[in-house]
Amino acid sequence: MMLKTHACGTLSKAHVGQTVTLNGWVQRRRDLGGVLFIDLRDRTGIIQIVFNPDFSGDALAIADRARNEYVLAVRGTVVERDAETVNANLATGEIEVRVTEIEIMNAAKTPPFPIEDGVEVDESLRLKYRYLDLRRPEMQKTLILRSKAAKVFRDFLDGEGFIDVETPILTKSTPEGAREYLVPSRVQPGEFFALPQSPQIYKQLLMVSGLERYYQIARCFRDEDLRADRQPEFTQVDIETSFLSQDQLLEMMEQLVVRLFRETNGVEIPTPFQRITYADAMNKYGSDKPDLRFGLEMEDITDIVRASEVKVFASVAASGGVVKALNAKGCASWSRKELDDLQPFAARYGGKGLAWVTVKEGEWRGPIVKFFKPEEIAALTEKLGVEEGDLLLFSADKKKVVADVLGNLRLKIGKELGLIDESAFKFAWVVDFPLLGWDEEAKRYVAEHHPFTRPNEEDVHLFDTDPGQIRAQAYDLVLNGYEVGGGSMRIFNRNVQEKMFQALGFSPEESQSKFGFLLDAFEYGTPPHGGIAFGFDRLVMLMAGRTNLRETIAFPKTASATDLLTDAPTEVDISLLQQLHIRTLPKPSKQPEQAAAGAAPTVQS
Amino acid sequence: MMLKTHACGTLSKAHVGQTVTLNGWVQRRRDLGGVLFIDLRDRTGIIQIVFNPDFSGDALAIADRARNEYVLAVRGTVVERDAETVNANLATGEIEVRVTEIEIMNAAKTPPFPIEDGVEVDESLRLKYRYLDLRRPEMQKTLILRSKAAKVFRDFLDGEGFIDVETPILTKSTPEGAREYLVPSRVQPGEFFALPQSPQIYKQLLMVSGLERYYQIARCFRDEDLRADRQPEFTQVDIETSFLSQDQLLEMMEQLVVRLFRETNGVEIPTPFQRITYADAMNKYGSDKPDLRFGLEMEDITDIVRASEVKVFASVAASGGVVKALNAKGCASWSRKELDDLQPFAARYGGKGLAWVTVKEGEWRGPIVKFFKPEEIAALTEKLGVEEGDLLLFSADKKKVVADVLGNLRLKIGKELGLIDESAFKFAWVVDFPLLGWDEEAKRYVAEHHPFTRPNEEDVHLFDTDPGQIRAQAYDLVLNGYEVGGGSMRIFNRNVQEKMFQALGFSPEESQSKFGFLLDAFEYGTPPHGGIAFGFDRLVMLMAGRTNLRETIAFPKTASATDLLTDAPTEVDISLLQQLHIRTLPKPSKQPEQAAAGAAPTVQS
Repeated sequence: MMLKTHACGTLSKAHVGQTVTLNGWVQRRRDLGGVLFIDLRDRTGIIQIVFNPDFSGDALAIADRARNEYVLAVRGTVVERDAETVNANLATGEIEVRVTEIEIMNAAKTPPFPIEDGVEVDESLRLKYRYLDLRRPEMQKTLILRSKAAKVFRDFLDGEGFIDVETPILTKSTPEGAREYLVPSRVQPGEFFALPQSPQIYKQLLMVSGLERYYQIARCFRDEDLRADRQPEFTQVDIETSFLSQDQLLEMMEQLVVRLFRETNGVEIPTPFQRITYADAMNKYGSDKPDLRFGLEMEDITDIVRASEVKVFASVAASGGVVKALNAKGCASWSRKELDDLQPFAARYGGKGLAWVTVKEGEWRGPIVKFFKPEEIAALTEKLGVEEGDLLLFSADKKKVVADVLGNLRLKIGKELGLIDESAFKFAWVVDFPLLGWDEEAKRYVAEHHPFTRPNEEDVHLFDTDPGQIRAQAYDLVLNGYEVGGGSMRIFNRNVQEKMFQALGFSPEESQSKFGFLLDAFEYGTPPHGGIAFGFDRLVMLMAGRTNLRETIAFPKTASATDLLTDAPTEVDISLLQQLHIRTLPKPSKQPEQAAAGAAPTVQS
Repeated sequence: MMLKTHACGTLSKAHVGQTVTLNGWVQRRRDLGGVLFIDLRDRTGIIQIVFNPDFSGDALAIADRARNEYVLAVRGTVVERDAETVNANLATGEIEVRVTEIEIMNAAKTPPFPIEDGVEVDESLRLKYRYLDLRRPEMQKTLILRSKAAKVFRDFLDGEGFIDVETPILTKSTPEGAREYLVPSRVQPGEFFALPQSPQIYKQLLMVSGLERYYQIARCFRDEDLRADRQPEFTQVDIETSFLSQDQLLEMMEQLVVRLFRETNGVEIPTPFQRITYADAMNKYGSDKPDLRFGLEMEDITDIVRASEVKVFASVAASGGVVKALNAKGCASWSRKELDDLQPFAARYGGKGLAWVTVKEGEWRGPIVKFFKPEEIAALTEKLGVEEGDLLLFSADKKKVVADVLGNLRLKIGKELGLIDESAFKFAWVVDFPLLGWDEEAKRYVAEHHPFTRPNEEDVHLFDTDPGQIRAQAYDLVLNGYEVGGGSMRIFNRNVQEKMFQALGFSPEESQSKFGFLLDAFEYGTPPHGGIAFGFDRLVMLMAGRTNLRETIAFPKTASATDLLTDAPTEVDISLLQQLHIRTLPKPSKQPEQAAAGAAPTVQS
């Protein structure tokens, strides 16, 4: 076997005159009347190799048998191309290799789609032939970027004294175990392991262990109904530290992100990152993961329209709702159809309607304008900075609905108006999340993050008076409108933990049965600790400029949690199931009912 | 909160006079009549902190409440100790910290065992309180070593252009799926994923993908009856490359090992590693993972005793068996009891007996000596280098039995005579493994490594005549008698693959149903490739000088595959099982029958 001395894409004019051996795949071949040109591809790029009766001897006839995707080994001399044949589109376009020896290492059938970027291929075909899809340069680039990103995470964390610890994949099923993958035990009949949704419990135990700083690039599992940006198994960079404050941790993580982008994307991210409270994020952007690459902030005009003749405004204000507005600069020219389309858009997010005003030729126009008093117009003009050509959009409803409607409208308009700098990476920390949320159905508080999230110290007294107002030492890292990380400081004080459980309505027995061994562990000298987890797949997706998580994973699963390449999952022999002490239930006549809404789409930490 | 400015174990005389803040755990406290000494521990070590009414003020009274394993934050001044109070056993023994401020960060119950090295504690108690067990310095040291070893693997492989790719954990069940963990699919009723025993198929697919060099520190799963050196989930450093020969790969891996030991253990491993064929290893050491830290090689004396009056020797030789001997130098003084004990020892490895000869006062002694002819004694003396004081041990049986008996006896004697340098790390490659083994029961050949292992080129012709003689391009890395890695070059040629399947007795249909998508993939231009996997847990165990895999894993499982800390596996609610379309079978009245012997204890690659 002729094994390579050089990689195709790394050859340059510096190699002219050298004899090189190359291994690679046939990208394409052209026969120009007895002279054969082959573009030979490896993971570094493409080089043109030439077979000519003058210097190739027998190699020409052998090369003539090669077809696309054949694997070749060739030996030859690097020569400079004639000026007129230089290919400026190719990194190696100034040179070519004159082949004197060739070996066909392997033949190839014609691939089901061309191995090149930018080809429209049905994704299911790409997934079935993933090994060919991964030959495409952009897929290789993404996988290489992913590998590099993991390396930078590790190098940084290693440098900061974090210890890479592997935690179990075969773990204990949790009491609220819906959405867990279960694994029957052969050795313990009738018992099951669960695949972890995150290493949360283990990382906290490692802090109890006094390891002080832990990290792991950890595989996590969630058996959810999938969407474009979910996978049943996903990867998070899981981090936990003792003896750091929230501020210290966030600053360290900013340095990590800076280094990550510098060393992989060559992008310089400015620090400190903007910090925005959850309350502000919801008020201004209608989202706890705001896209801050553009403004177009929502303004609360409830006080201005409280006594308005616009009935819906006044009645919403009176019933404790809010009225908010967006000023879409320069959009007064929208067509009637565009304006009408806003109504179903609002409805999609639970809005009952969307009022609008255009400002044209110095005049406010639109169905509701006639109900505005002059002083309201004056106040709105000031509050919203209204100018000629603006389009004002109003939503009046419960706070949550207004946030959803205008928040999504803001994103839509931002995109349509080109307000978004697509090359920008705009990071922010969203902080001061609420500790507790009110579950209307269960009539009780639930943990917004998890039951071990530490409240802000100045809010602890609210456990006794107004638990819903307690802010948590919980934070999300947001990038361009995506949550790419999240975490919290943890409760390490027994009294605070008990208050938390009380607020959640857990009896001591319940707490013990839910969190037994962790609470036990906390009794033995638990240090103050906290952590964060980065959604690695999503972060890589954004770094690579992709929009689909599947593009960042070598062997992803489909939206119905199947692997088109291997055909998993599959039925298995009943004897195997018997060894595991289980059997399958009769097949349902149709797909099982849609599961209830799953957990919030957060990176767990 | 007073957060640390320094780590306990990093303080030295250089810090004298400085004010430091420390966070740590109370290792022990001594009250010397109003002056309180506390050994404060963090992961870097221990420092003595002092509370004295002269400089500690209120801190003394607070410190007085602290007990073992309390978490403290203290601030104070580093001072040099008086000469007579210097503690030479402590890295920080020349200094102490005079505390002026203290905060009890957390209290602790009395731990169930002392948090220090070298204490005899029942392992099940240690596993139940693993978070306390991991506070012990030697456990922390091992986890830190493990983390560092992973880092060196990654740094080296990254430097050589290997790409870290994560492959799925939810994979397809294999046709010979015994010993696989299965995971029921919620979305696909009645179907199952399997947890991978190794990423073998994916790494080969990545080579088909043209990624050229892949690695992953991968979690693997095997649902076997466990032994001391097995875990249901284990970690391997999984490596695959295209366009390298076996020699090139092994040399690269030697450099990797050298760097690993240099940067983690500070040990310089000489290269090149010894290479020993499988045949030689079996002949000389009776094992394919010989401990080469000492000699004591077996000698084949079949030809010498073929016509011997020692009936068992002659009859074994006549029936195609072998007779081999070990010369245990200086062991002629063994007692009769020690010699008698050799019989049950041999029986444990299937031997029917073990003949012995002592050489004392120039005379051969022992039950069989009278049957030896003088020329046999002369030949044996020469062959075995017999001298005064030697003990000769003979085994006559089938080749395999003799190998087992004398191989294990060699290890036993090596240990007992102190022939083994316990500080040495003796690496070797075992090469030229047989490609095929004969399955006596199934009356057919089976793949010794796996069905894609490439035969030695000069042996390919033997497929037609004597498949059992074919040597494979398969190799194990052996360290001190343990297999710490293994792999092979893979078949990439269709004809050879078909010969291999024929030799294994697979019809084309069978091959397709067993390996379908992989064979399909191989049709599209597969490069020559091969790889290796290191057993990471075992390697770390040997590097750390431990003898039990559980000591190298943060949260291991017991020999019955349970987690004593979390109590996993557990029963789960039937409603969860229904969502997964399974139910459990009635509990067997006793434990299920012992499974048949599992796969050979090899690192898969």
